[in-house]
Amino acid sequence: MLFRIESDSIGEKQVPKSAYYGVQTLRAAENFKITGLTIHPQFIIALAEVKKAAAITNMSVGLLEKRIGNAIIDACNEIIEGKLHEHFITDPIQGGAGTSMNMNANEVIANRAIEILGGEKGDYSIVHPNDHVNMGQSTNDVIPTSGKITSAKLLNALLEKLVQLYQVLKKKSEEFDYVIKMGRTQMQDAVPIRLGQEFNAYSKAIKRDINRIKATSQNLLSVNMGGTAIGTGINADDRYVKNIALELRKVTGLQITQAEDLIDGTQNLDCYVEVSSTLKTCAVNLSKMANDFRLLSSGPRCGFGEINLPAKQNGSSIMPGKVNPVIPEVVSQVAFNVIGNDVTITMAAEAGQLELNAFEPVLFYKLFQSIDTIKNGVDTFINNCIKDITANDKRCKELVYNSVGIITAICPHVGYKKAAEIAKKAIKTNRAVTEIALEEGVLTKEELDTILDVYNMTIPGISGEELIKNKLLKLA
Amino acid sequence: MLFRIESDSIGEKQVPKSAYYGVQTLRAAENFKITGLTIHPQFIIALAEVKKAAAITNMSVGLLEKRIGNAIIDACNEIIEGKLHEHFITDPIQGGAGTSMNMNANEVIANRAIEILGGEKGDYSIVHPNDHVNMGQSTNDVIPTSGKITSAKLLNALLEKLVQLYQVLKKKSEEFDYVIKMGRTQMQDAVPIRLGQEFNAYSKAIKRDINRIKATSQNLLSVNMGGTAIGTGINADDRYVKNIALELRKVTGLQITQAEDLIDGTQNLDCYVEVSSTLKTCAVNLSKMANDFRLLSSGPRCGFGEINLPAKQNGSSIMPGKVNPVIPEVVSQVAFNVIGNDVTITMAAEAGQLELNAFEPVLFYKLFQSIDTIKNGVDTFINNCIKDITANDKRCKELVYNSVGIITAICPHVGYKKAAEIAKKAIKTNRAVTEIALEEGVLTKEELDTILDVYNMTIPGISGEELIKNKLLKLA
Amino acid sequence: MLFRIESDSIGEKQVPKSAYYGVQTLRAAENFKITGLTIHPQFIIALAEVKKAAAITNMSVGLLEKRIGNAIIDACNEIIEGKLHEHFITDPIQGGAGTSMNMNANEVIANRAIEILGGEKGDYSIVHPNDHVNMGQSTNDVIPTSGKITSAKLLNALLEKLVQLYQVLKKKSEEFDYVIKMGRTQMQDAVPIRLGQEFNAYSKAIKRDINRIKATSQNLLSVNMGGTAIGTGINADDRYVKNIALELRKVTGLQITQAEDLIDGTQNLDCYVEVSSTLKTCAVNLSKMANDFRLLSSGPRCGFGEINLPAKQNGSSIMPGKVNPVIPEVVSQVAFNVIGNDVTITMAAEAGQLELNAFEPVLFYKLFQSIDTIKNGVDTFINNCIKDITANDKRCKELVYNSVGIITAICPHVGYKKAAEIAKKAIKTNRAVTEIALEEGVLTKEELDTILDVYNMTIPGISGEELIKNKLLKLA
Amino acid sequence: MLFRIESDSIGEKQVPKSAYYGVQTLRAAENFKITGLTIHPQFIIALAEVKKAAAITNMSVGLLEKRIGNAIIDACNEIIEGKLHEHFITDPIQGGAGTSMNMNANEVIANRAIEILGGEKGDYSIVHPNDHVNMGQSTNDVIPTSGKITSAKLLNALLEKLVQLYQVLKKKSEEFDYVIKMGRTQMQDAVPIRLGQEFNAYSKAIKRDINRIKATSQNLLSVNMGGTAIGTGINADDRYVKNIALELRKVTGLQITQAEDLIDGTQNLDCYVEVSSTLKTCAVNLSKMANDFRLLSSGPRCGFGEINLPAKQNGSSIMPGKVNPVIPEVVSQVAFNVIGNDVTITMAAEAGQLELNAFEPVLFYKLFQSIDTIKNGVDTFINNCIKDITANDKRCKELVYNSVGIITAICPHVGYKKAAEIAKKAIKTNRAVTEIALEEGVLTKEELDTILDVYNMTIPGISGEELIKNKLLKLA
Repeated sequence: MLFRIESDSIGEKQVPKSAYYGVQTLRAAENFKITGLTIHPQFIIALAEVKKAAAITNMSVGLLEKRIGNAIIDACNEIIEGKLHEHFITDPIQGGAGTSMNMNANEVIANRAIEILGGEKGDYSIVHPNDHVNMGQSTNDVIPTSGKITSAKLLNALLEKLVQLYQVLKKKSEEFDYVIKMGRTQMQDAVPIRLGQEFNAYSKAIKRDINRIKATSQNLLSVNMGGTAIGTGINADDRYVKNIALELRKVTGLQITQAEDLIDGTQNLDCYVEVSSTLKTCAVNLSKMANDFRLLSSGPRCGFGEINLPAKQNGSSIMPGKVNPVIPEVVSQVAFNVIGNDVTITMAAEAGQLELNAFEPVLFYKLFQSIDTIKNGVDTFINNCIKDITANDKRCKELVYNSVGIITAICPHVGYKKAAEIAKKAIKTNRAVTEIALEEGVLTKEELDTILDVYNMTIPGISGEELIKNKLLKLA
Repeated sequence: MLFRIESDSIGEKQVPKSAYYGVQTLRAAENFKITGLTIHPQFIIALAEVKKAAAITNMSVGLLEKRIGNAIIDACNEIIEGKLHEHFITDPIQGGAGTSMNMNANEVIANRAIEILGGEKGDYSIVHPNDHVNMGQSTNDVIPTSGKITSAKLLNALLEKLVQLYQVLKKKSEEFDYVIKMGRTQMQDAVPIRLGQEFNAYSKAIKRDINRIKATSQNLLSVNMGGTAIGTGINADDRYVKNIALELRKVTGLQITQAEDLIDGTQNLDCYVEVSSTLKTCAVNLSKMANDFRLLSSGPRCGFGEINLPAKQNGSSIMPGKVNPVIPEVVSQVAFNVIGNDVTITMAAEAGQLELNAFEPVLFYKLFQSIDTIKNGVDTFINNCIKDITANDKRCKELVYNSVGIITAICPHVGYKKAAEIAKKAIKTNRAVTEIALEEGVLTKEELDTILDVYNMTIPGISGEELIKNKLLKLA
Repeated sequence: MLFRIESDSIGEKQVPKSAYYGVQTLRAAENFKITGLTIHPQFIIALAEVKKAAAITNMSVGLLEKRIGNAIIDACNEIIEGKLHEHFITDPIQGGAGTSMNMNANEVIANRAIEILGGEKGDYSIVHPNDHVNMGQSTNDVIPTSGKITSAKLLNALLEKLVQLYQVLKKKSEEFDYVIKMGRTQMQDAVPIRLGQEFNAYSKAIKRDINRIKATSQNLLSVNMGGTAIGTGINADDRYVKNIALELRKVTGLQITQAEDLIDGTQNLDCYVEVSSTLKTCAVNLSKMANDFRLLSSGPRCGFGEINLPAKQNGSSIMPGKVNPVIPEVVSQVAFNVIGNDVTITMAAEAGQLELNAFEPVLFYKLFQSIDTIKNGVDTFINNCIKDITANDKRCKELVYNSVGIITAICPHVGYKKAAEIAKKAIKTNRAVTEIALEEGVLTKEELDTILDVYNMTIPGISGEELIKNKLLKLA
Repeated sequence: MLFRIESDSIGEKQVPKSAYYGVQTLRAAENFKITGLTIHPQFIIALAEVKKAAAITNMSVGLLEKRIGNAIIDACNEIIEGKLHEHFITDPIQGGAGTSMNMNANEVIANRAIEILGGEKGDYSIVHPNDHVNMGQSTNDVIPTSGKITSAKLLNALLEKLVQLYQVLKKKSEEFDYVIKMGRTQMQDAVPIRLGQEFNAYSKAIKRDINRIKATSQNLLSVNMGGTAIGTGINADDRYVKNIALELRKVTGLQITQAEDLIDGTQNLDCYVEVSSTLKTCAVNLSKMANDFRLLSSGPRCGFGEINLPAKQNGSSIMPGKVNPVIPEVVSQVAFNVIGNDVTITMAAEAGQLELNAFEPVLFYKLFQSIDTIKNGVDTFINNCIKDITANDKRCKELVYNSVGIITAICPHVGYKKAAEIAKKAIKTNRAVTEIALEEGVLTKEELDTILDVYNMTIPGISGEELIKNKLLKLA
């Protein structure tokens, strides 16, 4: 391989001649071989957007020569279009609060700009990574800001998926509205419910997740650009400080504003904990739903068997014909992933000291992974599972009519104690509760038919007034 | 001890004659000896408020006899006033989704109402725990609702403390506005900042916590009363269902509304995860601040020594004269407590199945503890620490003037590379950067005096324009 | 109330005349009102044991006057017997690495010793909390050591319960050895298993927990007594340093040894993280088992219904006759509690700095709670649930014979693909797999009877050799 | 692209002609697009080792035709050598308890074996993925076993690094044995210690980590091969069941044994929780050490400045000359990563149901990542940080002699109260404690010189006896 020599305050070092990154990036790549991965492509794009906005702003206030500034902008545009990403080689888990990612961006952009201006990579007298590309900036405002831009974009993609999830659940809730089935509390038969009501409840929970994520995503858009090293804006021209957020808003298309307090914005990472927390909360709802699907589809013959999940792949390498709830299973795994990531994110945020939090890289790594894996999990949940769920209507009906749980509806008419006696007898003798109720003469057949109308039992609040009208209610 | 005999579906059992609780409570107390503690006093009060609102509503729609209803209300009022709490004997960690807590309330209220009506405790023909006190209700709407009421009230108390914390930090930020000190990133000397700016940044983070907690507290006030067993409202009269939330609003004084979907409201606990998450986020900010205080006050002679925490107790049983940062230490411990509790709460919420989450009790136990311990931690943080912090102005000034970090301000004028050389030389020779800068002839004394004005360095954006005016800026 | 005046380096303060604690304890109680609780009674006893052992050792090497030493020992003995515990008033979550707990012990013991010697409480010229009771010690060796003693004793109590659990599971596994039932993977019908085999598997997991806890409990018994402030043993006589661990072994009856490196023993808390981790691992096994019981007992009519849990209390305030799996539910809640506590403990241990970890109090609070709640959870699991579980033999048999899962056994004889076709057809047509296998002529009735012997299917490794002998195996 | 048609129970599907994987792998790849990554290369190798051992065993007992068996073995060997890994395309987070990984292995091996036997990929009549490659196996024994093999190998690599870390710490502890410095507790000056003692304490903690990881690694080697679907060994020949573990021991070179109870071994994942817990505990020790290094090297001029970390890269994009503790920072980030992963692993293990845990894939993904990232973190910690740490001997000495903390040594001679007065006066007047002690006449200069010998203060237990000999000890 051919090399060029670059130097920094540590000393000289060979850099591959073809590399757009420079000596500082290379040192970082050697210092941090942790995950073997590189930073998120959207994070690379966000870095380029920040650098572009800074160049535009620096040019507009006369600090950056047009020729240099335009070359920088061109280089940034290439990165935004997806080029040069392979030159971003630092590990997502790295020391230094992201200095290495920032310098990686500075070096790639500088070298590409140098080329554009007809120079050779490494000749930083033409465009300098620190003095020009990083002008008016610091790792400590660039990295948190790029992290926020990345998060906001990834969250938008997640929100789209969650809206789809909400819609498919709503649709299913209508489709299954007629399916009367046994409701269960604590895994024990309770009282009747309709399958559509269950799906509607799932949709409501997802609706809250959507609202939570939207709100937190808004909070993210307050950035600390202009704060430079510690939020005091050292070395940043005040016209630059005033304009950079506005420019970044144009470049990114996001509703970015400048943080009210740049010092606070530089050192406190609670806004990311907030994001991760909403993801974790969403994970809780998703996993609960996935677990329900696994329960309801358990069987085919020795379980609940109330719904069928679509068969998406052979279930077993040894048991023929087995179809497993693999999609709900992966959704729960995603949830566990997100919940564990939240602990890492929380610890990283808590560990900040004084003017900076040095643990942003691992926080971003986990946060972006949480957003992406939830999005991907939701996508397969919708398309490979929920939209093709079918109901075993007949089985559902059989179970509910054969249940002891419907006894509850008799309660207001005969009292809790008497009802409990009937229930106990039914379980002991393995007979129907209606049969015993009739036998014991506590209610007439007509009364029982009215009270034990299973569909009515699933409609909030209908029983009382109607039944009183029918003079069936005895307690009042 | 004297006993009375009570019976339930399990069989007969002796209950202490003086006890207001009954057989079901007693069985629960025996089944669940887990923490040795009892449920939160505010939770007991919330249960009584729910029972009172239910009685009023049931009476108003003609379902509950006035005589019985009024006795129930009187009994509830006594509990709300703090009486009879010693009869709530079930462990906060209990199986059964809170059935035992609910039955404990039903039994205590029934027995007290029986007494009020001239009967003897245990004679449930007068007032029945299930048929009368629990009328139109189920554990599954009573417990989540009581948990929300309790949380909302405890959060209000916490919010009061956080507002005080915000105010004391603001006040300190003004008091310390004049104290110029070294800013540090990654524990290394960076560039100057004012101590007041640091305190202002803390206040901003707490401000966000206040807003987050307020918002989540609002979300809590949507309750599932009327849903009874599984949210379908079985056995609840529809007029009761329509009125109960309104009545509960009156009884509690909280802006309670009825959940849009009672089924969802019965089975999904994401709203509590949301609350716990905001507490966790607040814990992150508090612990970060506490850690900073421990760093800044480290010494007295071998540390940073920039601030003094008030001495609140002897620091050591062996080292005389030692004063330790015990209050920040306890604040961080509270934070660790809250962060761990959040994991328990998350797991409990995730474990819900079908129409109910059976793991609410441990969720509430941890959630109430999180709110209370943060509140108490903040209280001691304010009163035994922050309000009496003093600054070592002289020490701060010495450190900043003696630092290498101020070299940063020279950067825009001589370039990053040259500045780095000066810095390196200063560190190596243990001399002042100004001295070397002069010696190397890169800037005149006058220029240096302007550029290295430490106070100016702490004012965002001032340097650029001013310096250009002074024709000092060379790069542009 | 009557008061006496005490003073410390902060100043003078009124202490209740009847109180055995002194001014330092009182300040701590005021500084740390966090949980409203006090420290664990076993921790109080452990503190007294440490103080007693120190007094004995100090006397034996001639550092402590006999008269004073004996009074201290008498005071310690009273505390060990359970007296004076109400004078230990500091909160379990407290700043200062436990200095306040240690001083609380020093003050109570000093004041009681003063009384024994005929003096008046508060007259520390007779017995001094620091100079006499704390002689040769520091909070920083006393507290970690007392924490280890407490943990070891609590773990012993837990181990006893776990051994009982192991035994009851073993017994049940024998009792249920004859019950053939459907095995399930991923909630889907798999292949036959015996209920006894399931219980045996649970017992094996608990066996590992017992071994793990035993091992970690051993590791705990290496203490840092003699290290005083930071492990260098400052102010401790070297004869005392050599003898204190041995003396403590006698006083406690535990196999205590002195840490090889007292400095390490003072600052690193990984041994507690190790303990908490084994508890967490045990919690995982317990919760998995509890979840299985809830699944297997789901019903009574709309679930698996394979086993019955004993009814320990009414299941519902609204649904008569409902019996819920309340004991398994509380066991899972305990597990969530322990898993969350582990996060707090981990964070507290990680936060240690330099020569000491200041966050021990919250670590101990959570650790002791984890041990106690698991112990209590296991106790109720055994006595209120497992020992009275019964099997629904008939139901189990019906399900397994009616299942499609037994098709798996046909696989080696007809190939995976053909077996899968039969399975698919059986599910689609809702018929028995044997019926279709016969119809398709792939195997004779005799072959099927041999191959599909359900009991044989549950015996590892029987099928192959036997079947080859019977010339049924076609693939080989 | 050219395709071949394959079919499974779901239907027909185009598979790229060049692909060694088949239809089931392809479906899985489409169903699970979660992380965008593929499974760990060591896991691929472990799968091939299991398949190879199974083929050998099946051949030896006459179940598998030699020609087919040998082709399978050849294919496995290629994978073990690192070939064909690009055909393992399933996501590490996947539903189905690893069925897709197992089928991926079965298909790749079958197709490669088919080629070796002169057939064309996809012609499973020659070698069948299920009937031949998976013979006597199930996902449910193959995946846990492969996970254990992978973990054991990765742990061995980690152990090597930890041993190196231990050695370098030991070496440094000798190198720094002469450096006397201030010990600090709770961030406050305490009493003297030697830098070498600090490094020795770190080494002791790492020693415990090594022992813990070794022990847990042993526990891993008990595998459930032979258990097939649920541990009952259905479809596995009993001679195969008896020999497979032994064969696997030969193939892997690991001390593998067969689990005592194959049913337990199939469903319980506590052994992985145990591994993750030891990693977490190690993470705690590493992060504590990393934090200490950041504290001790804080400065260069406004911090502790007691040690220097080697400069490995430019510290800042804006602040010239800044060198940051980037390696300790990345080590703490790795620790946070591992601690969060532990929560995911714990939740995945807890979520197992009945005869299987369906959540193994995410558990393995996180577990392997934890092992790898700790290993990599330790590697850079050793080579880019610890081995080149230097001490600022002079600064250390100045701080300790100038400190108030040395007053502690006076305590046994003048009592805690008097010593505290001197300390307080010293702090207030900013004078040396010796000066005040002399002035107050409590000790002579000669006595002070003996008592305040700083080096002696760092030697456990020396003071007492020596000082008594010198008749300096007054209290006894």
